[in-house]
Amino acid sequence: MADGASTSGPLAPCGTIGILGGGQLGRMLATAAAELGLNCHVYCPDPDSPAFDVVSRSTCAAYDDEAALAAFARNVDRVTFEFENVPHFTVDFLSSRVPVLPGAETLRITQDRLEEKRFVEGIGYGCAPYEPVDNLDDLRRAVDRLGRPCVLKTRRFGYDGKGQVTIREGDDLAEAWAAIGTAPAILEGFVPFLREVSVLAARSPDGTIACYDIAENRHENHILKISRVPAAIAPQAEKTALEIGRRAAEALNYVGVLAIELFVVERGGEEDLLVNELAPRVHNSGHWTQDGCLVSQFSQHMRAVAGWPLGSPQRLADVEMTNLLGHDVDDWARLARDPDTAVHIYAKTATRPGRKMGHANRLIRRRQG
Amino acid sequence: MADGASTSGPLAPCGTIGILGGGQLGRMLATAAAELGLNCHVYCPDPDSPAFDVVSRSTCAAYDDEAALAAFARNVDRVTFEFENVPHFTVDFLSSRVPVLPGAETLRITQDRLEEKRFVEGIGYGCAPYEPVDNLDDLRRAVDRLGRPCVLKTRRFGYDGKGQVTIREGDDLAEAWAAIGTAPAILEGFVPFLREVSVLAARSPDGTIACYDIAENRHENHILKISRVPAAIAPQAEKTALEIGRRAAEALNYVGVLAIELFVVERGGEEDLLVNELAPRVHNSGHWTQDGCLVSQFSQHMRAVAGWPLGSPQRLADVEMTNLLGHDVDDWARLARDPDTAVHIYAKTATRPGRKMGHANRLIRRRQG
Repeated sequence: MADGASTSGPLAPCGTIGILGGGQLGRMLATAAAELGLNCHVYCPDPDSPAFDVVSRSTCAAYDDEAALAAFARNVDRVTFEFENVPHFTVDFLSSRVPVLPGAETLRITQDRLEEKRFVEGIGYGCAPYEPVDNLDDLRRAVDRLGRPCVLKTRRFGYDGKGQVTIREGDDLAEAWAAIGTAPAILEGFVPFLREVSVLAARSPDGTIACYDIAENRHENHILKISRVPAAIAPQAEKTALEIGRRAAEALNYVGVLAIELFVVERGGEEDLLVNELAPRVHNSGHWTQDGCLVSQFSQHMRAVAGWPLGSPQRLADVEMTNLLGHDVDDWARLARDPDTAVHIYAKTATRPGRKMGHANRLIRRRQG
Repeated sequence: MADGASTSGPLAPCGTIGILGGGQLGRMLATAAAELGLNCHVYCPDPDSPAFDVVSRSTCAAYDDEAALAAFARNVDRVTFEFENVPHFTVDFLSSRVPVLPGAETLRITQDRLEEKRFVEGIGYGCAPYEPVDNLDDLRRAVDRLGRPCVLKTRRFGYDGKGQVTIREGDDLAEAWAAIGTAPAILEGFVPFLREVSVLAARSPDGTIACYDIAENRHENHILKISRVPAAIAPQAEKTALEIGRRAAEALNYVGVLAIELFVVERGGEEDLLVNELAPRVHNSGHWTQDGCLVSQFSQHMRAVAGWPLGSPQRLADVEMTNLLGHDVDDWARLARDPDTAVHIYAKTATRPGRKMGHANRLIRRRQG
């Protein structure tokens, strides 16, 4: 595990960072880099990518287009990405030509729910009870062991509730197995959690780590709706959450911002944590940092990738971040009128139900310096 | 004076704002617009423009290239600019096709020091004593009237100390007249000011005005070096400064951010103000707003141009902005390490002495909410 080992010295201003993926995260990474005097080159197969609009250099090509990837690698000094499902081939191809941060080993682990859970257990933390499921017989045995309700999730390519199905009393297992496409999966036992929170750890190539304050997250229909800082979390659990962030970043020899979603559960009258998911990238639950910190998660990620000193993750205000999903974004003028709200819109041309179109950061109370 | 009259309704997300000028102000305007879901098209004759790097749409052409201007006008919903010396022809040509904000009348006044001073007096405020100078005889008479030292300034195309010369005891007037290129000029009497401050007023098409807190500015070699908020200024003078900002923006029927440089002078033991200069654009002395307010001057300008509600100009911290001139920028890594500093770099490829390469906003003390 030596993902951070291939970087050389810091990337000076006017250097170029390549970004794989052209969604809102890529867009916000690129504008954050621009403020630091770093330019970005966005690579994405989708011609309708909002990140293309904020860079002069972009490549619209498939992730297995060797000629396009080779040209991309020649034109950038570092590569990072806005999504964890970057194909293995793409990362390998690029890594032999230019530093890719975070790197291949991190992606191998975080692209596979089974590997990810083994990694979490390997560094000494807990996750929801689970069983690997490779066929219908496995599924039957796993359901017997973990009980209902439980959740069947594909090992790979799941996000925002995609690639998963809840199994309740009376549900047919063959149907559930078919619903996720009979792909290698895991079955997760139901976790009666109190709250969902997340930790964002930034790590630079020299091993320095900076964690942002824990955010409390509320999902609707498996999609993040609201993140709030500070989180309602017991001091001891907060300490553990930050420790999980640091420990995971260290174990992966990580470079950049790493997001970890956690369940707060009750154990013996105390709050305890289970790791839900790792995201090797900037994360929706860290959008509050744009207006709540001097250095946002986007700037911090680019600093780490560029080998710059990390910025302070100190929180300057209480913030509530609300995602603008689908037609929520039509409310932009009212949101822009609120003196305590900063509105962020992604300039996606098509509005679809549940699609992330923007977010609003509302400062609830500023802290004294 | 109806500069703001030609705008229609607000420009929805995914709209495009054209920016004339491709320097650091254009770059920061474009990234601020991107956060609001607005895209930008940068027009600049200089192929080495740092604003080109942060937009997908740009035009590198002369300001009198009619074909290029016509295509530009077709591709944008509004036009704004990052510098006040936009040629008259360019503004007229574009204004007949697309709203240009702020508009032609504002530029006519602010491009000419004599018109500007008459405007300031017309709205009831004072400026340094001055005389128009169109030839060497005028200059002789004006120097007799205003005394030495005094400053000879071209009426047009001056900035950062360019196009001006100080006349001291013993200086030859013919030499001074030649030094500014024998162009129409004004002679300004010397003002023994206590401090330089500036007010930034934002005005939207509906007439709403929002002023940022007064900044105190320190110049070195005629170039801004440091801006500090809050400014050391007496309460009554502060009130007057804000009033000057509002009154000027109203009188110009202005849309966007208007910056006014002021001299704080002593008159009868009290602080009084003289207007030094108007800049019909975002301004170096407002860079502190990027990290000291929820809505920066860049975002505010684009909101006004787009017809969005203005954001709150409330100041959330005490801030000291320091320009990184020339090789100051080589110090970026040390600045980036300071937990209270946000470093902003413009990605200019050539470093020249005195050239504005970036700036650093240091939060001195945060305010309680």
